[in-house]
Amino acid sequence: MKRLLALLAALLLAACASPGLRGTGDLGLVIERASGSVLVVDTTARAILGRVEGLGDLSHASAVFSRDGRFAYVFGRDGGLTQVDLLERKIAGRIIQAGNSIGGAISQDGRLVAAQNYQPGGVKVFDAGTLELLADIPAAWDDGKKLSKVVGLADVPGNKFAFALFDAGEIWVADLAEPRQPKLAKFRGAGSQPYDGMVTPDGRYFIAGLFGEDGLALLDLWRPEQGARKILANYGKGQEKLPVFKMPHLRGWTVAGGRAYLPAIGKHEVLVVDTATWQEVGRIPVKGQPVFIMARPDGRQIWVNFAFPDYGQVQVIDTLEQKVVQTLAPGKAVLHMEFTPRGEAVWISARDDNRVVVYDTASFARLAELPAQSPSGIFFTSRAARIGF
Amino acid sequence: MKRLLALLAALLLAACASPGLRGTGDLGLVIERASGSVLVVDTTARAILGRVEGLGDLSHASAVFSRDGRFAYVFGRDGGLTQVDLLERKIAGRIIQAGNSIGGAISQDGRLVAAQNYQPGGVKVFDAGTLELLADIPAAWDDGKKLSKVVGLADVPGNKFAFALFDAGEIWVADLAEPRQPKLAKFRGAGSQPYDGMVTPDGRYFIAGLFGEDGLALLDLWRPEQGARKILANYGKGQEKLPVFKMPHLRGWTVAGGRAYLPAIGKHEVLVVDTATWQEVGRIPVKGQPVFIMARPDGRQIWVNFAFPDYGQVQVIDTLEQKVVQTLAPGKAVLHMEFTPRGEAVWISARDDNRVVVYDTASFARLAELPAQSPSGIFFTSRAARIGF
Repeated sequence: MKRLLALLAALLLAACASPGLRGTGDLGLVIERASGSVLVVDTTARAILGRVEGLGDLSHASAVFSRDGRFAYVFGRDGGLTQVDLLERKIAGRIIQAGNSIGGAISQDGRLVAAQNYQPGGVKVFDAGTLELLADIPAAWDDGKKLSKVVGLADVPGNKFAFALFDAGEIWVADLAEPRQPKLAKFRGAGSQPYDGMVTPDGRYFIAGLFGEDGLALLDLWRPEQGARKILANYGKGQEKLPVFKMPHLRGWTVAGGRAYLPAIGKHEVLVVDTATWQEVGRIPVKGQPVFIMARPDGRQIWVNFAFPDYGQVQVIDTLEQKVVQTLAPGKAVLHMEFTPRGEAVWISARDDNRVVVYDTASFARLAELPAQSPSGIFFTSRAARIGF
Repeated sequence: MKRLLALLAALLLAACASPGLRGTGDLGLVIERASGSVLVVDTTARAILGRVEGLGDLSHASAVFSRDGRFAYVFGRDGGLTQVDLLERKIAGRIIQAGNSIGGAISQDGRLVAAQNYQPGGVKVFDAGTLELLADIPAAWDDGKKLSKVVGLADVPGNKFAFALFDAGEIWVADLAEPRQPKLAKFRGAGSQPYDGMVTPDGRYFIAGLFGEDGLALLDLWRPEQGARKILANYGKGQEKLPVFKMPHLRGWTVAGGRAYLPAIGKHEVLVVDTATWQEVGRIPVKGQPVFIMARPDGRQIWVNFAFPDYGQVQVIDTLEQKVVQTLAPGKAVLHMEFTPRGEAVWISARDDNRVVVYDTASFARLAELPAQSPSGIFFTSRAARIGF
């Protein structure tokens, strides 16, 4: 009986000892795209805490976080939406919500998770706690006869989501004050084939990149009555029809110090745009075709990665000097970068070297290298406190 | 024996069940100034989780948070520095580090906590984990014969702290790359009697308010070689020598959309300043003498509270319309306001009504009222991810 008691005590203690109490402000996850798994990481210790498996097809996957920082919502390419418990390091919930999906967002109040889908085209909105479907917003166009692929979904203040319809050339804003009865504002004729979108860090402007024409579509969410308008008329693939190895991500666009830094398409340049006038004010030559252009949280530095064949390198632009000040080689096939919340370090995934490299952003020293299986996206819980992520 | 087993099991489970595993991204604390206690609050449930007592003199107390969001560091007026465990809701560490203290900051990497002291005048830097003293920076001036009171301490990128010396009229920047060997950059002749300071949200500009003369002192931390300079020459008590009921807090100053919103001193106005030129571009009339002027995280709204006798009210300025759009009466003696991370709600302390009131910032509806003993400052863990808090 003594032995039984001891065993019982040991079992109970083991059950409650692991995992321990800890804060979630310095947690994050790394997508392992080939194996359908994610790594839970600690940005203070610069360490991997564990791996969670069974998330399905994670090519082009992205993640958002619950308001408390405990849960990640991972959007898979196969329409899977997986809620990952970062503290217990296990799947807390998982649904297949569409046939082909391209990311999602979480509402300002943290209660709603929205997924944007290619197939069937539209947005679905779920309860962040239970993953119950609350609203299904088909992206109907052409008098309701067709459904459009949805891109660029972003949370904006007022518990709204903004997104673009690739096939319809429209921008929609869904107001989810009453989650089961979304109110839609539709901005038609926004531009031809929007392929991605983003909101500025203040949540004011929604900008969509256009595949079907040059220029960008911009909607001022503070003045929606003005409708969508075209900016940067020369932005795009242009007349020369350069080979474009990869359409750059707009979500990586960066606004710092009143300027937006945009990837030129097909050219080895970063475009600098004044956000007061939305006019181009400069171009900064870089090593390759930019994919992600990300500002360190203080806006002093812009980090840029590139499309094939230059995707083994990363360059750093100093925004005060408006030029490249550093070139780094983190490894083969750099796919993503994520800054720690206040920007003292950056984590970079090198897919084909199966590692994540952590750099000090002041000295550019390598602080750590962590093994990962074909890592792609890196996402930290500090996103939960930011608009448009 | 069966009963013993059951008892043992129950005890063990109770021991590990409380407090439960949870995220820390939606936690915060409310200072109860009269009783030397703090409330730990949950901004998702809009609820009080518990009270922690024994923090000493909390008049004019403020708090910063550990990188993981688990611990708060509370700076008391009596020189007490208390580390509060928000998850276990108990004091994790406490020292008396000075005789008279006026707040503190946490370094960019979260490893260093710094306190600014009136008596003895200077800054002390502690290990955030152990509260061990790592560096003592006396604010020596007048050829080292005197120590100055220190004000306006703020973390800035590069693991530095910026602060001002009230008696010396200087701004100092301490580089703590090597915490036991701080490197000091001193900017002399910054202005007469700086009484508070702040950094812009990007960590670029340190601005000190001056008690001894009109105008403000500004240091561009990206171009420190230019030294400190004077801006807004007419800002201050001015010629008219109006009665000033309370010098406004600079830490509450707000930068939104390329404009800074400053409290006029002694006047019922909010000053609007262009941060590109640091010239005044407008004045917005308000109900009383502003104390805190705080931007909703998206910058669309500015919330203002007031000095006696108007301190029962709060006004909301719409930054697009540049005018007051709402007046609220949260209770007697409104001392502080804190926005939830993405700004859907604001928490306001009404000291003399012993309550904290939570408002929806879109509809201005009262969402909750929470009892608190003479509440003053309210601080949420999302500050851990921000520069200059």
